[in-house]
Amino acid sequence: MLFVCCGVAAAQKNLKKEEAQLFQTEIDFAKLSETKGAAAAFAAYFAEDSVLLPHNGNVVTGRDTIVKYLGKGYTLLWKPLRAEVSKSGDMGYTYGTAETRWTDKDGKPQIRYGKYMTVWKKQRDGSWKVILDMGNNSPAPAP
Amino acid sequence: MLFVCCGVAAAQKNLKKEEAQLFQTEIDFAKLSETKGAAAAFAAYFAEDSVLLPHNGNVVTGRDTIVKYLGKGYTLLWKPLRAEVSKSGDMGYTYGTAETRWTDKDGKPQIRYGKYMTVWKKQRDGSWKVILDMGNNSPAPAP
Repeated sequence: MLFVCCGVAAAQKNLKKEEAQLFQTEIDFAKLSETKGAAAAFAAYFAEDSVLLPHNGNVVTGRDTIVKYLGKGYTLLWKPLRAEVSKSGDMGYTYGTAETRWTDKDGKPQIRYGKYMTVWKKQRDGSWKVILDMGNNSPAPAP
Repeated sequence: MLFVCCGVAAAQKNLKKEEAQLFQTEIDFAKLSETKGAAAAFAAYFAEDSVLLPHNGNVVTGRDTIVKYLGKGYTLLWKPLRAEVSKSGDMGYTYGTAETRWTDKDGKPQIRYGKYMTVWKKQRDGSWKVILDMGNNSPAPAP
């Protein structure tokens, strides 16, 4: 009984550690987007065979095609609300809130609010990479 | 070597079976939405502590709140493009294309095209339930 109890407890502890690692990976990914731009960040954190489901676009398949799709002229910021990982530690998801910021033709700063969800796969080198990602719009937060 | 080879092969076969089961679950879920409406289908296939990330809405938490959020007066149809399951078989995802159909105030049928992605968790009774779901819009398909 002791063995069963503590084996499960150890597995749960490892899972919490994996989830904390995935949550931190998402924060690092968002930080890179803020400092280097969305295209550079997606190039670094998306798996080669990943899929993007962009709002107002069709399914985009493959990291290189996704990076080209992103374009320039805006800043994409986001914050995870949660990370959860499968028992085998090879698949996980995150979701959270997002903001797209840009400057309009009159030089006025603009913000569009949104949400996202992402499925991640643990890679052979132990890092997490995005395999599926989607975003949509949210109402502006109450002032 | 033989043991290693065939243990892995058996695990991969089981994973393919799990993925086929999840893909079929998504098809059954969509069929129920078509015949009984989105609210009844979401009530049947969403886990109690699930989360919905609706386009133009905020995060909606909990199956009962999600079902109330859905409302009436439209038909929600979708088709999975892919299902993939974690090695432990407890978590998986699907994504695909969607259509929202309704009749406008002049009695004219309307369609809005979209995409979705869903994270699923295997339940104790062996069924798959949705734990996280999101949708956004797509361009109308080429005629």
